[in-house]
This record gives sequence, structure tokens and C-alpha cells, in this order.
Amino acid sequence: MEFLAALERAIGAGLVQTGEAIAARHHTDWSGAPPVVPLALVRPRSTEEVAAVLRVCGDHRVAVVPQGGLTGLAGAAVPRADAIALSLDRMNAIESVDLAAATITVQAGATLQAVQEAAAAHGLQFGVDLGARGSCQIGGNLSTNAGGNGVLQFGMMREQTLGLEVVLADGSVLPMLRPMLKNNTGYDLKQFFIGAEGTLGVITRAVLRLHPAPRARATALVALADFDASLALLGRLQSRFPGAVAAFELMWRDFIETSLVWQGLREPFDAPHPFAALVELTGSDEAALGEALEALLAEAMEAGQAVDAAIAQSRAQALAFWKIREATAELPVHMQPPINFDVSLPMAGIGRFAAACRSAFDARWPGHHSIFFGHVGDSNLHITTDGRSIGGDEAGIERVVYDQVAAFGGSVSAEHGIGLHKKPYLHASRTPAEMAAMRAIKRALDPLDLLNPGKVFDQ
Amino acid sequence: MEFLAALERAIGAGLVQTGEAIAARHHTDWSGAPPVVPLALVRPRSTEEVAAVLRVCGDHRVAVVPQGGLTGLAGAAVPRADAIALSLDRMNAIESVDLAAATITVQAGATLQAVQEAAAAHGLQFGVDLGARGSCQIGGNLSTNAGGNGVLQFGMMREQTLGLEVVLADGSVLPMLRPMLKNNTGYDLKQFFIGAEGTLGVITRAVLRLHPAPRARATALVALADFDASLALLGRLQSRFPGAVAAFELMWRDFIETSLVWQGLREPFDAPHPFAALVELTGSDEAALGEALEALLAEAMEAGQAVDAAIAQSRAQALAFWKIREATAELPVHMQPPINFDVSLPMAGIGRFAAACRSAFDARWPGHHSIFFGHVGDSNLHITTDGRSIGGDEAGIERVVYDQVAAFGGSVSAEHGIGLHKKPYLHASRTPAEMAAMRAIKRALDPLDLLNPGKVFDQ
Ligand SMILES: Cc1cc2nc3c(=O)[nH]c(=O)nc-3n(C[C@H](O)[C@H](O)[C@H](O)COP(=O)(O)OP(=O)(O)OC[C@H]3O[C@@H](n4cnc5c(N)ncnc54)[C@H](O)[C@@H]3O)c2cc1C
Ligand SMILES: Cc1cc2nc3c(=O)[nH]c(=O)nc-3n(C[C@H](O)[C@H](O)[C@H](O)COP(=O)(O)OP(=O)(O)OC[C@H]3O[C@@H](n4cnc5c(N)ncnc54)[C@H](O)[C@@H]3O)c2cc1C
Repeated sequence: MEFLAALERAIGAGLVQTGEAIAARHHTDWSGAPPVVPLALVRPRSTEEVAAVLRVCGDHRVAVVPQGGLTGLAGAAVPRADAIALSLDRMNAIESVDLAAATITVQAGATLQAVQEAAAAHGLQFGVDLGARGSCQIGGNLSTNAGGNGVLQFGMMREQTLGLEVVLADGSVLPMLRPMLKNNTGYDLKQFFIGAEGTLGVITRAVLRLHPAPRARATALVALADFDASLALLGRLQSRFPGAVAAFELMWRDFIETSLVWQGLREPFDAPHPFAALVELTGSDEAALGEALEALLAEAMEAGQAVDAAIAQSRAQALAFWKIREATAELPVHMQPPINFDVSLPMAGIGRFAAACRSAFDARWPGHHSIFFGHVGDSNLHITTDGRSIGGDEAGIERVVYDQVAAFGGSVSAEHGIGLHKKPYLHASRTPAEMAAMRAIKRALDPLDLLNPGKVFDQ
Repeated sequence: MEFLAALERAIGAGLVQTGEAIAARHHTDWSGAPPVVPLALVRPRSTEEVAAVLRVCGDHRVAVVPQGGLTGLAGAAVPRADAIALSLDRMNAIESVDLAAATITVQAGATLQAVQEAAAAHGLQFGVDLGARGSCQIGGNLSTNAGGNGVLQFGMMREQTLGLEVVLADGSVLPMLRPMLKNNTGYDLKQFFIGAEGTLGVITRAVLRLHPAPRARATALVALADFDASLALLGRLQSRFPGAVAAFELMWRDFIETSLVWQGLREPFDAPHPFAALVELTGSDEAALGEALEALLAEAMEAGQAVDAAIAQSRAQALAFWKIREATAELPVHMQPPINFDVSLPMAGIGRFAAACRSAFDARWPGHHSIFFGHVGDSNLHITTDGRSIGGDEAGIERVVYDQVAAFGGSVSAEHGIGLHKKPYLHASRTPAEMAAMRAIKRALDPLDLLNPGKVFDQ
């Protein structure tokens, strides 16, 4: 095939694999989308090679699916039989850490964990953390604008990003790598590629912000009577510890119960309560932080905002609290399959939204097994339902949830993106004028629709 | 004129002014660009009226210059004789404050100060502050991605923005007002309009983040022997007080001396020192914060990173420290004219950059009067030179500074934008491929080049 020959001429035969030579892990991602063998798997080693690949693809009108760590939950990196998969896995260098500026420069194929470790080696911390840290890549994190555990304190990937190097569909390179926090010189082009799920350009390098590693942490589990109490408690925490609330994870009773059963854990309080919030603060002095948190929780209980509370007395106890929240790691074992929702909503409405979803589920699928949990402090709610418990009616439950999302003015994807999986529901969060603007941008940067075609929306 | 008649039919005669009826303040902005009387001044009261105006302009191929508070320093809002000026000053409502989510929804014509006051009325704080607060508008702040005093702690306007409503050149409205922190549903279109200086759309409303107002502040003035000591001190502060360093303003000796002379102030330390840093921390307990800062400064002196230090013992003393920094308000009085630079640089290079500029100035204009100062913590350096002291050679000194900016890999505009004023130097911060991508985006969203044509770059 002339196209493959041209590719091999451009970057060398060793970087181009086809058919059986392509490892199965490149056939799909974590979304569970059916596996597809791409036309070829290409694994460039440099920005110049990425540019050369895109030029050959442009000349032959062959599409390109960028692949990072393939941990995406929306099917955005799933290959196509008529397109090449472009893996960044060989471009994984941690290029430099600048201590004066607290920045790190990396190739896009570096894993999130490699970045975290490089920061930690200098007493610093990277602001984004998520369960797939060992496999997901910075390029994938950027292209999905990943969120995760640190959003309340540090924001999403967008907020960590000072500079990007991007290769456009025509092979031209945008070297937007200036490491300055402030840089108002025309359009901030790098913003366009963050969260674009590989449809506007291939990210090859990034300059990211780092933060000082905290010297102390305090962790508490707080029992709450209702959703509004959680917002009141969060407000109190943020006003008392501005910038220091590192986590505020809310768990509905169904989640807590499920977690305790699956993991054989004991009820954390004397009695069951409708909600529990896992709170983590950072600071500089362990004892002072613990005392201040204790005082605040006493006030919250006095004000009727909290029903009960336990402060971790050791790192082990903090991890035990986190273990309740981390039941999500067990989802694929206990639910067959888990049907996951990752929505965001105006904060004041999250409690009513959850109640509305639950009563709709109850009415239609009595006996369904659903768990509600979320970061809440950043407007994000997750719902997971056991597919068996609703007779496998995935389309039905999606319609119920996304109709409620539209009714509450929310978003069908808080952090996982649209990919293939949520394409049918994008209209619930975007108006026709917004869709038209997205298509115009796509046409401007990728007129031949070569980059990840068919993902996010159809041209 | 048929165009003006159509405008009046669309939104009513009372909203369209021409000729002498247009107040002089709409003829130019703070950049000092020569005044121009626009074809008409249009002052819509609603998003629908903005859309109607843009549709009429599109039909008649008449360009539109959006105007906010006209405090811009780059000439970006200066009108054209063949275009209308579109002022948002009648759309200045503070629509709502959401305490649960800590957000505020406003029309784009609201002044920055009105937003700050609405936040303060609820015990909250808006993250952006700058000298022009009483006149500049949120729409202008967003369109220039304004920075100012709070960047170290809260970021620039972009980081405050959860949602925008924007009217495109064709009159279609993008209602991107969902107030969620997390919303990964396709391209994050609102990012495209922040910092676009009115060339991609007219911003009509915004949902902005608020932060808890700090309960306590501590302020210190620290004498330093060299630039690198300032970075070491800043690093120490940020690692000891993560998220709580509200200001780190560095002043070179020339700046301090000039400020003391202009304002008749006394030398703050026993002896003059090459640098002084104004440090401000926020926290929850006044006494504890002061003590912790004192301990840190003692350590810094022991480590040779600071030469001398004074902690403000009262709000009055803190204001006296700030007064030294605020000599910039006197610039137009004492320098005729002041030639201002607002550049950003990789942080570790700022000291060498300043030294290189100064020796180039010394060589070419012996006896020049220049002052160096900056936020530094966010990579931003300001230089102001008295125009008389260099024989009015503005073009000459711009070339010297921007050549150095290019050599150090910096940016010709940290926070003020490009507008008209810095257009000739944009190439020093952007490559041809980046310029081509900007032009492609502009053509995609404004194919007739109707929105603020000739600003930032030429199509
Ligand atoms: C156990 C687990 C926990 C998770 N937790 C979270 C969480 O808390 N928060 C969260 O936000 N997500 C979470 N995710 C989802 C997933 O990890 C993130 O979306 C992650 O950012 C994807 O990175 P990746 O490298 O695996 O990307 P991939 O899945 O390989 O690709 C994702 C998208 O990015 C594009 N892409 C990848 N690399 C590039 C590049 N270099 N240039 C251009 N486009 C590129 C792909 O084309 C695709 O569109 C979780 C996933 C798992 C499996
Ligand atoms: C004393 C003083 C101090 C300053 N300090 C700082 C500082 O510390 N940091 C800083 O960043 N800047 C500073 N500036 C610059 C200036 O205040 C900011 O750039 C400010 O954000 C401009 O707002 P404005 O409403 O006056 O905008 P204008 O000058 O009216 O317009 C600026 C640009 O925005 C566009 N625009 C305005 N409104 C809209 C809208 N609704 N939709 C689309 N486009 C629009 C205009 O077309 C123009 O391109 C200072 C200025 C002064 C005079």
C-alpha cells in the first residue's frame, strides 16, 4: 500500500506496525467500546516525526486517532479500521524541572505518575491526581482536561498548563511553550487544544505548573443529615481554610452501604446517616491543623450542620476513611456492567437532582442498585448503576439521567469528555449555535477532518 | 444614511448617537492613541439588542469596535471613523450572587469595582483587582484577560471565569453560562473569547468565581541584595504559606529612589538596598500569621536571602509600605510621557533581562530615567522610562526592549494585550505558524472581519 510505504519512508519502518503486530491494548480504551484494529499503529519518537506522519496522512487523506494511555472512559481514543493510531508512548521524557518558577517541561507521552514523581523528588507536587495515574499520559490528561482528586484546590489540567507544543493537521508545529503565567499576546491558542479530545491537534510537549508539597494534612469523616448541610459545611471550611480544602467527597447512604458490604468494612459512626463527607485539609503544622479542624467541626455540629464527625488520628486512620470512598475501584468486579455517569450541575441543585434521578429509577426499575457520590465542591456528581439490576437497559437509564441534566441546566460530562460514548447526548449541554461554533473551529484548524474524526461530534 | 436608519429601526433611535452627540471619552482609551470620532456610538441595553446591532452591521458590512471602560493601555478599544463603537455601559447589572457555589452573574458592562463590592457585601472577594477598578468593565477585563494585584493567589480573569454569554459577528448568541467548575462537553468555547480583545465576539454576560474574604493579612517590606535572593525568598514563602502569598512586588533600587523622591517619603531601611520586596500574606488569625511571617523572615536573613525586613505593625504601616509601590499612580505627572513596558519572562531570567535592558539604555541614552518593578512571582516585569530622558525616542527604546524579550524567550505583553500599540512587536512573541492559526480562528468566527478589525493583527 503506497500510504504505508510513504509513512515508512518518512519516519522509518520500525515505527510503523500493522495487523497482528499491533498490541491488543491499542484496539480500544477503558470505555468498553468494541475493539478495532487500526490501519497501522505509529509510534513516533519526536515532534518532527509526529509532523512528518501528519504530512503523509494529509497527502493520502488518511485519518489519525491520537492515543495516550488509553484509560479514557468515553471511547475518544478508540481506533478506526480506516485510520492510523498515533501513540505518543515513546515520547515520555521528563525534560526539565525549573525550581525557581516551579514548572516542569515534559513530552506528552509521559505518564501522570512520572510527572508526580518528578515533582515529589523536588519537594513539589503536581495539582492533578486520578486513579489511572500509572497508565494515563499527560497528552491524554490535557486532551480530556482531566479533573480528579485535586480540583478543589488546584483546578483541572487547564489550570496546570503554562505552555503546549502542538502539531496541527497540516504538520505545522505551534511551539507555545513559553513558561510564563502571564502572556497576553493575541489569542491564547493553547486553550483550544485542552479538552479537544485530539480533534484539533496532537499535543507533543507541555510546560506545567507545580505547587509546594504540603507539610501537613488533616482528614475527617463527617456525618450529615441532608445535602444542604454538606454545602453549609463546605462553605464554612472554605472560608476558615481558604485554598487549603484539598478534598470534599460526598457519599450518599447507598454508596456508603455498598462500600461497607463490598469491602467488609465496619460502619464508621454509631448509627447510619444519610450522607457522609470525607474532608481533607492541607497546611504547614499537623497539630495546629488538627485542632483548628476539630474546633470547626464542633461549631458545625452546634450549628446543626453536622451530625457526627471523626478526625483521623493517624495516617492509617485517614487511609481507612479514604478506603470507604475508594470502593469505586471495585465497580467492575461487583457490577456487571457498571453504568457510569459523570455529570456536573449548579451546586445548589445537586441534592434535588440526585433525588429526582433516584425516584425516576425507583419508578421504572424497582430493585435497581445505584450509588451516588461526588466531589460536589467542584459541582461534580457520579452515579453508578448495576446494569443487571435494570435489565441491561443502558439506553433507558441514560435517557432518564440526561433528561434530568438538561432540566437542571447541568453538563453531561464533568470530566470524562464526550468521545464516542456521549456524542448522542452532547445536545443536552450545548445549543445549536454552540455546535456551529465548534464545527467552525474544527474546520478552521483541520479542514480535511483528519484528526480523530467522528469523536465529540460529526462534521 | 440607510445603515444608521436600519440601526435605529432595529433598536430605537435613542440608543444610536452620531457626531457631536458622542461624548469625547469614547474617542480613545488610556493608551494615548489619537482620538477618532466613530461612525456612530451604539449603547444597547440587552443581549438581544447587541445581536440586533451585529446583524444590521453584518448586512451593511459595517465594522464594530466593542468598548468597555476605555481604560485599556494598548489602544484596543480606540474607534474607527468607518465603524461603530459598541459600548456596553448600559448593560451593567449585577444579576445574582450564588452563595452556595460562590459565584456571581453579571452583565459585561458592570465595573470591576461593582463586582468587588457585590462580593464584599456577602463576605466574599473577587480574585482580580487593578488600579482602574472604578472605570474598567468586566467585559473589558475579560477581553484583555486582565491580571493585576491578585494573580499570584487567584490567577488572571481567565481563572475567574465559569461561564460567558457571547454574541458572534453574525448575531448568533452563545449562552455558555453554565456555572459549573467542571464541564467537559466539547470545546470549551468561552476560552476563545477571553483575551481576544473584542475581535471574536461581544461578551454580554459572565458567571465568575468568588473567594472567601481573608480574615487576616500580614504585610512586610524586605530588603534584598540581588534578584536571585528574591526568587529564593518567594520560594520559601510559597512553600511555607501555600496559596496564601497574596502579593510579592519586587522593586529595583531606581524605582524605590524615584518613589521616595516623588512622594517625599523616608528611606524605609537604615541603608539603601539594591532591591525591596513587598510581601503580603492572607490567613485566618492576625497574630499567628504575623508571628509565622516573622519567623520565616528571620530564617531567610540567617540563610543570607534577605538583608533586612520590616513587618507592618498596623494597617496604617502596611499602607505606608504599599505607598512606595504605588508611585505608579504618579507616572503621568512626573514623566512626560511615561513609556511603559509590560513584559513577562521565564522567572529565572528576569534579573539578567533587567540588567541587559539597563546597560543597553545606559549605552544609548546616558542620563535616561528608567524604573524597574514587577509582580515577578507571576513572571511579570514593568519598565517605565521618562520619554524626555531619551529624547522622545519611543520607537528606539521599544526596539531595544522587545529585542531583549525575544532573546530571553519572553512575551511582549504580560497583561495589557496587543491592541494597536504592540501589533508591530507581536512577531517577537509568536511564530508564523501561530499567527496563521490565529488568523484561521478569526476567519472561522468572523469571516467578514467585522469585529474590531485591525486590532491585535491584520487579516
Ligand atoms: C481507574 C480510572 C480512574 C479515572 N479517574 C478519573 C478522574 O478522577 N478524573 C478524570 O477526569 N478522569 C478519570 N479517568 C479517565 C481517564 O483516566 C482520563 O480521561 C485520562 O485523562 C485519559 O488519559 P489517557 O492518556 O489514558 O488518554 P486516552 O484514553 O489515550 O485518550 C483520551 C483522549 O485524548 C486524546 N489524546 C491522547 N493523547 C493525545 C495527544 N498527545 N495529543 C492529542 N490528543 C491526545 C485521544 O485521542 C482521546 O481523544 C479515570 C480512568 C480510569 C481508568
Ligand atoms: C490606572 C490603570 C491601572 C491598570 N492596571 C492594570 C493591571 O494591573 N493589570 C492589567 O491587566 N491591566 C491594567 N490596566 C489596563 C486596563 O485597565 C485593563 O486592560 C482593563 O481590563 C480594560 O478594561 P476596559 O473595560 O477599560 O476595556 P477597554 O479599554 O474599553 O477595552 C479593552 C479591549 O476589550 C474589548 N472589549 C471591551 N468590552 C468588551 C465586551 N463586552 N466584549 C468584547 N470585547 C470587549 C475592547 O474592544 C478592547 O479590545 C490598567 C489601566 C489603568 C488606566
